[in-house]
Amino acid sequence: MPGSDRPVVVLVEPQLGENIGAAARAMLNFGLDEMRLVSPRDDWPNHQAINTSSGAERVLEAATLYNATEDAVADLNYIVATTARLRDMVKPVLTPREAAATLHRAAAAGERAGILFGRERSGLHNDDIARADALLTVPVNPEHTSINLAQTVLLIGYEWYLAGSAAEVPAELTRKGSQPASKEEIQYLFEHLESELDSCGFLHPPEKRPRMVRNIRNIFTRARLTDQEVRTLRGIIVGLVRGRNSGPDDV
Amino acid sequence: MPGSDRPVVVLVEPQLGENIGAAARAMLNFGLDEMRLVSPRDDWPNHQAINTSSGAERVLEAATLYNATEDAVADLNYIVATTARLRDMVKPVLTPREAAATLHRAAAAGERAGILFGRERSGLHNDDIARADALLTVPVNPEHTSINLAQTVLLIGYEWYLAGSAAEVPAELTRKGSQPASKEEIQYLFEHLESELDSCGFLHPPEKRPRMVRNIRNIFTRARLTDQEVRTLRGIIVGLVRGRNSGPDDV
Repeated sequence: MPGSDRPVVVLVEPQLGENIGAAARAMLNFGLDEMRLVSPRDDWPNHQAINTSSGAERVLEAATLYNATEDAVADLNYIVATTARLRDMVKPVLTPREAAATLHRAAAAGERAGILFGRERSGLHNDDIARADALLTVPVNPEHTSINLAQTVLLIGYEWYLAGSAAEVPAELTRKGSQPASKEEIQYLFEHLESELDSCGFLHPPEKRPRMVRNIRNIFTRARLTDQEVRTLRGIIVGLVRGRNSGPDDV
Repeated sequence: MPGSDRPVVVLVEPQLGENIGAAARAMLNFGLDEMRLVSPRDDWPNHQAINTSSGAERVLEAATLYNATEDAVADLNYIVATTARLRDMVKPVLTPREAAATLHRAAAAGERAGILFGRERSGLHNDDIARADALLTVPVNPEHTSINLAQTVLLIGYEWYLAGSAAEVPAELTRKGSQPASKEEIQYLFEHLESELDSCGFLHPPEKRPRMVRNIRNIFTRARLTDQEVRTLRGIIVGLVRGRNSGPDDV
């Protein structure tokens, strides 16, 4: 579907079909129609999902399946990750209303945006969070914070829909001749850097590696790189590794 | 309970216990705790309601029962009635956000306010609507307007909560034990990186050097680095330059 101005809803390892169905219904209430599922626990298609979707079957039928979050977001440029807990990561934390504004702004700049939702019980893993440009938390009564998956989809969809009518926000600065990098380009950059850091022993000891990798990825995710900048950084890695004694052709 | 500044939620002839439970949960998410039920279809207390309330049992336990809407709203001063259809009545029609503002205004004026919700299938009767000071309609995708009782409670509760409280989430998370890097630390990072890039020939030819340096600095400036991240990046530079053939002491 065309829909490039509408954010994609990515459900990571959803457990209950009824929540997927209710999420689809909430999406369609507010004009969102592209759902991606990363390793749903139960079989797909799922009858429980269809039963609770109340007429939003077409969202479920068009939903695409992925084995890894990484693949589900590969073509996106801007990602908001929903979380109920504060994370030990340095990222902007947005309300649904603020997130809605940033999603419209991304779309206005020609970027593909997505919203990540985690498992019902445990939320998103830190590795998924690390891929996101911003976090989103629903402000709730601190004495009763339990809010379910479909309700969170509903609130964000609602804010996105409302913000759309007044979505005349000027596009962010775009650097001439360059585009926001896709998540796939950024993933290749990460893999390139991490493989060099493995070679030189920087990511030792192994038990600290996942956290170090997350911290490094966070730095570059926050920078919201353009495709040109990704190329520059990859050139820097090649240059530093090649070192001072090698000629320019020795790549 | 005191709660005179909080609007009462009045469910008129709700049919499904699970919707009552989900409504109670949504209420408590946003600090609403007074529920009134007008002739619920099934027995009360209702096990389905308790099962779906996810910890909001106290709202259900304190809920009061009435035989007629008239009695349920007798002590209220200001009433908003939810409706999906436009009615042939001359009343203001509010969005949830506008309604939230009027509910707070009523409370500030010392009035008791309430929100009326109708039957799942058919909504409120015109007689109930006639008691209301204003109508409330949730703006939804005209192609998929089906939105359920608890979801409507959720959206209105959310807007009420946002309008009334500071309801803030922290602007940005700061990682424990780390501070935003000083400009001086960042300057040292830049000089370190650029000196290595000069050594390996990356910043050639000289006439392009100033622009390349600016572009690289921009990447890291946008990331708003912490002091810890600056140390990480400097470690990465040292690691990549030292390379795979050197021992750990060969810096």
